[in-house]
Amino acid sequence: MFEIKNIDGCAKSGIFKTVHGDIKTPVFMNVGTAAAIKGAVSTVDLKNINTQVELSNTYHLHVRPGDKIVKEMGGLHKFMNWDRPILTDSGGFQVFSLAKLRKIKEEGVYFNSHVDGRKIFMGPEESMQIQSNLASTIAMAFDECPSSMADREYVKKSVDRTTRWLIRCKNEIERLNSLEDTINKNQMLFGINQGAIFDDIRIEHAKEISDLNLDGYAIGGLAVGESHEEMYHVIEKVVPYLPSNKPVYLMGVGTPSNILEAVERGVDFFDCVYPSRNGRHGHVYTNHGKLNLLNKKYELDQRPIEEGCGCEACTHFTRGYIRHLLKAKEMLGMRLCVLHNLYFYNNMMEEIRQAIDNNEFAAYKKRKIDGFNAGE
Amino acid sequence: MFEIKNIDGCAKSGIFKTVHGDIKTPVFMNVGTAAAIKGAVSTVDLKNINTQVELSNTYHLHVRPGDKIVKEMGGLHKFMNWDRPILTDSGGFQVFSLAKLRKIKEEGVYFNSHVDGRKIFMGPEESMQIQSNLASTIAMAFDECPSSMADREYVKKSVDRTTRWLIRCKNEIERLNSLEDTINKNQMLFGINQGAIFDDIRIEHAKEISDLNLDGYAIGGLAVGESHEEMYHVIEKVVPYLPSNKPVYLMGVGTPSNILEAVERGVDFFDCVYPSRNGRHGHVYTNHGKLNLLNKKYELDQRPIEEGCGCEACTHFTRGYIRHLLKAKEMLGMRLCVLHNLYFYNNMMEEIRQAIDNNEFAAYKKRKIDGFNAGE
Repeated sequence: MFEIKNIDGCAKSGIFKTVHGDIKTPVFMNVGTAAAIKGAVSTVDLKNINTQVELSNTYHLHVRPGDKIVKEMGGLHKFMNWDRPILTDSGGFQVFSLAKLRKIKEEGVYFNSHVDGRKIFMGPEESMQIQSNLASTIAMAFDECPSSMADREYVKKSVDRTTRWLIRCKNEIERLNSLEDTINKNQMLFGINQGAIFDDIRIEHAKEISDLNLDGYAIGGLAVGESHEEMYHVIEKVVPYLPSNKPVYLMGVGTPSNILEAVERGVDFFDCVYPSRNGRHGHVYTNHGKLNLLNKKYELDQRPIEEGCGCEACTHFTRGYIRHLLKAKEMLGMRLCVLHNLYFYNNMMEEIRQAIDNNEFAAYKKRKIDGFNAGE
Repeated sequence: MFEIKNIDGCAKSGIFKTVHGDIKTPVFMNVGTAAAIKGAVSTVDLKNINTQVELSNTYHLHVRPGDKIVKEMGGLHKFMNWDRPILTDSGGFQVFSLAKLRKIKEEGVYFNSHVDGRKIFMGPEESMQIQSNLASTIAMAFDECPSSMADREYVKKSVDRTTRWLIRCKNEIERLNSLEDTINKNQMLFGINQGAIFDDIRIEHAKEISDLNLDGYAIGGLAVGESHEEMYHVIEKVVPYLPSNKPVYLMGVGTPSNILEAVERGVDFFDCVYPSRNGRHGHVYTNHGKLNLLNKKYELDQRPIEEGCGCEACTHFTRGYIRHLLKAKEMLGMRLCVLHNLYFYNNMMEEIRQAIDNNEFAAYKKRKIDGFNAGE
């Protein structure tokens, strides 16, 4: 399922095969929370910016329009008109960060919808059922993501429960995949490593979940408040204990530099809201660092965001024009910045894969980060 | 400059030649107020939906980013990256509808910016100077658009002043077009007929402005509160007194049915915010009437907005999906509805031109309006 193409240090390039097509890794998944990329970007646009995998949020879709509606519409792929792979998260992270009045029990989590306040229960089985209704390519296990401030005792208890939940997820997805009316009977399951910044808990957990022979493994609970160094440290510690023949997914990370550092430590899958969220605020990525297009100095700037960039914004419009759109609160300004940022990320991943294939990742990484730091 | 291709009753098809290319008439101009179509639609999109003419608002661009900025950026065409014709309004309508604390004098209008409250003066010369800086293909004369509630005496006085202003506009644009550093030295000027719903004032004014041998003539001050019948009546009365070898532009009108009625009465140019504004609210045009996609009944509707429509929304997405986007307040929902609506208008104009060329406009119009009224 996961073919390693080349190994360059700890970085690796590969191909992950799915029923919705091959994923070239390392890959950055483009986040479309509610079955749409924020910033007026459609799946037609995603094809134009070379997106390989779209990521949607289980919690949001369960709340609106409802996973049963999506199932009646033929599943997420048909709903969004996207024939490439889709990964859905488990809903857990949103339950813990967005929902109100939550109560965690062995069976799952009781909480109130952030949209209309109604009571919802979600446990491992419910998360798998919702994701099965959505019919994504890859489902994520339902886990608890403990606060980065949580003490050791809480984290240990939480991680043990997450392991028990993972076994229930695995059993449930196997049952769902065998049902007659399941849309994607080949839905895959990725487990999630937790343990905050406690090395031994992380490693013990990694070993336990590795035994379950899942389709892939994620490192969760990072980029939630700890320092970059702590994050890199955890990745270094954990990756060696995850199966080498399965992809490793670093959830919710991060900046272009974060991604380069994590690839160097063996990570294959990424996702993050940064490119779309920053784009909506006029912050755009370039090989010479991030620009804030709202800055007055771009008012008369006739250059594209980045010379030579192939995105719709850079091939057609100037910084000065996009700045005007942002100042005038024209949605088009946000759309162009989001398109550029996602293209930048997707394109960087392509460069990363090539660098690994050419056994020159370390030099590429240094050049890239030096460029980011140098500025314009 | 204006070649009549065919005449079918009072309806006519033609070609209006400009330095930025030919305009096939009747034409619907797509409104991009602040140099962008609201709803995250770019000039790249406009080409895809067969837009012939983009219309921008002088007042908005004067206030932000400033017409001098646009001039430094090479004019509106370069600023927006649009090589087809652009029409700019005079700013008058916005001064009268948006600006605060305005004072009308013989020399022009004193008012406060709706953005930052700063004092601005705009008269015929200033309007021409701003439009010359914007370098649009067609500039509109600076006029007063009296309230539809204004009494006869006020309207007469106002129209007389509008005529004097028109002469000043003509002199000023001729001067500007002869200057070395003017971007578009072939900028054209359309005059505007006013007179509220007083036939004799309208007709007298039409005669006066016709003598000025302008590039085109607009009927202004309609669709501002009077009934459709009053509007059609004014068009019928005025058109015969405007030069038959110049295009007639009905400003700010209107619904698909309004356009069909006005084409039948000899109008060649149209513009209106309806398709983009309605699109942003999820109201979409079809040959079977307007749909409100927020309606619950579209939740599971797997059909496109309109079967057979060639727009990006209809060729890729279902009503159910677009409804979800609108409910979830995803910008993409607005963008898809705006794209559809503008495509619908542009496509209807193409059908109108063909019907006129085939001498079957009356039958086409009846069929179309019957369809709108029949509903789904």
